[in-house]
Amino acid sequence: MNALRHTISIVALGTFQLGRRMKSQHLHGLLLGTGLGLSTIASVTYAQAEAAKVSRKLNVSKFMAEPITDSAVLLSDQDNMRHRMELMIMEIQADFCRALESEEFNGQKFKVDRWLRKEGGGGVTCVLQDGDVFEKAGVNVSVVTGSLPPAAVQQMRSRGKDLAENVKLPFFASGVSAVIHPRNPHVPTIHFNYRYFEVELPDGSKQWWFGGGTDLTPYYLDESDARHFHKTLKSACDEHNTSYYPKFKKWCDDYFHIKHRNESRGIGGIFFDDIDEPNQEGAFKFVTSCARAVIPSYLPLVQKHKNADYGTKEREWQLLRRGRYVEFNLIYDRGTKFGLYTPGARYESILMSLPLHARWEYMHEPKATSKEGDLLMVLRNPKEWV
Amino acid sequence: MNALRHTISIVALGTFQLGRRMKSQHLHGLLLGTGLGLSTIASVTYAQAEAAKVSRKLNVSKFMAEPITDSAVLLSDQDNMRHRMELMIMEIQADFCRALESEEFNGQKFKVDRWLRKEGGGGVTCVLQDGDVFEKAGVNVSVVTGSLPPAAVQQMRSRGKDLAENVKLPFFASGVSAVIHPRNPHVPTIHFNYRYFEVELPDGSKQWWFGGGTDLTPYYLDESDARHFHKTLKSACDEHNTSYYPKFKKWCDDYFHIKHRNESRGIGGIFFDDIDEPNQEGAFKFVTSCARAVIPSYLPLVQKHKNADYGTKEREWQLLRRGRYVEFNLIYDRGTKFGLYTPGARYESILMSLPLHARWEYMHEPKATSKEGDLLMVLRNPKEWV
Repeated sequence: MNALRHTISIVALGTFQLGRRMKSQHLHGLLLGTGLGLSTIASVTYAQAEAAKVSRKLNVSKFMAEPITDSAVLLSDQDNMRHRMELMIMEIQADFCRALESEEFNGQKFKVDRWLRKEGGGGVTCVLQDGDVFEKAGVNVSVVTGSLPPAAVQQMRSRGKDLAENVKLPFFASGVSAVIHPRNPHVPTIHFNYRYFEVELPDGSKQWWFGGGTDLTPYYLDESDARHFHKTLKSACDEHNTSYYPKFKKWCDDYFHIKHRNESRGIGGIFFDDIDEPNQEGAFKFVTSCARAVIPSYLPLVQKHKNADYGTKEREWQLLRRGRYVEFNLIYDRGTKFGLYTPGARYESILMSLPLHARWEYMHEPKATSKEGDLLMVLRNPKEWV
Repeated sequence: MNALRHTISIVALGTFQLGRRMKSQHLHGLLLGTGLGLSTIASVTYAQAEAAKVSRKLNVSKFMAEPITDSAVLLSDQDNMRHRMELMIMEIQADFCRALESEEFNGQKFKVDRWLRKEGGGGVTCVLQDGDVFEKAGVNVSVVTGSLPPAAVQQMRSRGKDLAENVKLPFFASGVSAVIHPRNPHVPTIHFNYRYFEVELPDGSKQWWFGGGTDLTPYYLDESDARHFHKTLKSACDEHNTSYYPKFKKWCDDYFHIKHRNESRGIGGIFFDDIDEPNQEGAFKFVTSCARAVIPSYLPLVQKHKNADYGTKEREWQLLRRGRYVEFNLIYDRGTKFGLYTPGARYESILMSLPLHARWEYMHEPKATSKEGDLLMVLRNPKEWV
């Protein structure tokens, strides 16, 4: 029943998106001259007919690209969590990319790469680079299968997973992840990642769990932004379990910590792993709520600050903080390290999280009584926002 | 006898450096006005008298700062390898910093930080940032004692060191290391590091070894530069053992490899560790030769290219390659990881190796038939230069 509702909402949203896409394609054709414009209009008509056909099955035109799993397979087994998760993350990716595109001043669009992995599965990587509003924005979906690399087994065992060492463990992993680096230093960077994992055990049984989180990295502290962001995440959590937000907020502060500098990467959010409660259905709904909370948590901040004035001083501070972002991602982030050590990993999709520019100054320390100092104070002493 | 010769050369060089330093201090005083100028001249006279007194003992005025070990102790036990190494690395640091300063267009100087570590020892960190010729240049000396962190013991054991686990192992480590990021994309980046290590075993005996290397990271390939650089290193090696250069050149290519991209960081040089042959004296002399080969291997390249024309395209390529440099240092470099995981580490001295600016573009690939493509070809297929 839930799967059906999900499919319906995909189709409905798909129609809206289709219309919007056609409009921009048409415009593009006209700009290139009447002849080309006409031929584009003709192809639009054909595309509309094709899309209408597909939408009776699975409306993939709302996604940034075809899903990794064949549409017929996705439709034939709609209760399978692998398929439900794939449809959910494809939807989240498309909604988020289009919400960001709509904030650009000159119609900049995401570049879409659909890739397959010879070891099994693939992904859809969307990157908008050098936009007016977004200096670098990457939104990635991946749906992969394979054998767990030994380092991964060890890491999972250290987290308490009951997995045998020295045994080949087939796994399935799917997830959506994004890092958005805006150009204006008054607009914060956001990161989120929602994922589903399955491991097949030698006795034929299966372990599964969800993980994820959303966190914010401002360059200048706007307390009302911080409260709005955390409040939106808290509401998404509270719908499912009121113990989640405080627990996952703390987990986030602990995780996004740049140990050698003893400061946080940003002002946190939520972070969790190994979620298998109350049951698969409940865990999936929780993760879906969190993923759907990304746009309302973040877009208002983009709209509020994207036209704010700034100068060289603010830009240099932003680049320095981006250097810290790079330090965290390359030295501590489990996902990045893990990805890069996995044979056949698509490193361009993993490293799309790195900013277009970063800066490192020796012994930089802002004045305590400056706006930069205000941010540092909070990064060194994480606080409660709601 | 060798120690004596070493001390003599320090005093001789010290006198030259003293003269040069006084001149700039005097000039600085005059620029601030006559009154201040006079008082500066008076203090110079006093400083000269003080310096002359010290030079009869150990002329530290040639160094960038006081050595970490007390001068009286350094002089009282001149055959002690710890002391000989400390004097050598202080000398290398000062000679290199001054050679670089002399290439600047507007007299930019290194900022000198002498620091002590509460766990034992300390260092001298010299950084020249935002120069006309050097965008960021860091030259660091450290002389530290402590107990080996467990991760270090494990790493050394994996390299074949016969060290007990779960036992407190006191160590001594000293070394000089430098990373120079010039502004002009036609001037390569250089890195070198020479170090001496001692570990005390539970039975009271001692293990000691030397390690180090010098390597070059050009942004544009100049084959005659590459040949000059490698030839200079080879000569330094050949003086001691003709098997060294080929062995250490390969070690360097293997080490400075960005695994996830399957490309080298630069065009290599030499790299080695665990050197304890033919004996302590011979190993020290070898390392000293290598360290003294840095200036002749590199300065001619700075002089040759520092006035070369370049535009935005060259600058952006340089920044992209600097992004790769950051990836190597933060993901793979043993020294960096090690340093950052050591309690009480001075992270500013470890991370001074990072460039002032770096850039990451999604899916950047230069044309195969471009100057950028020529460099990539060599980074993907390391070659023999001599």
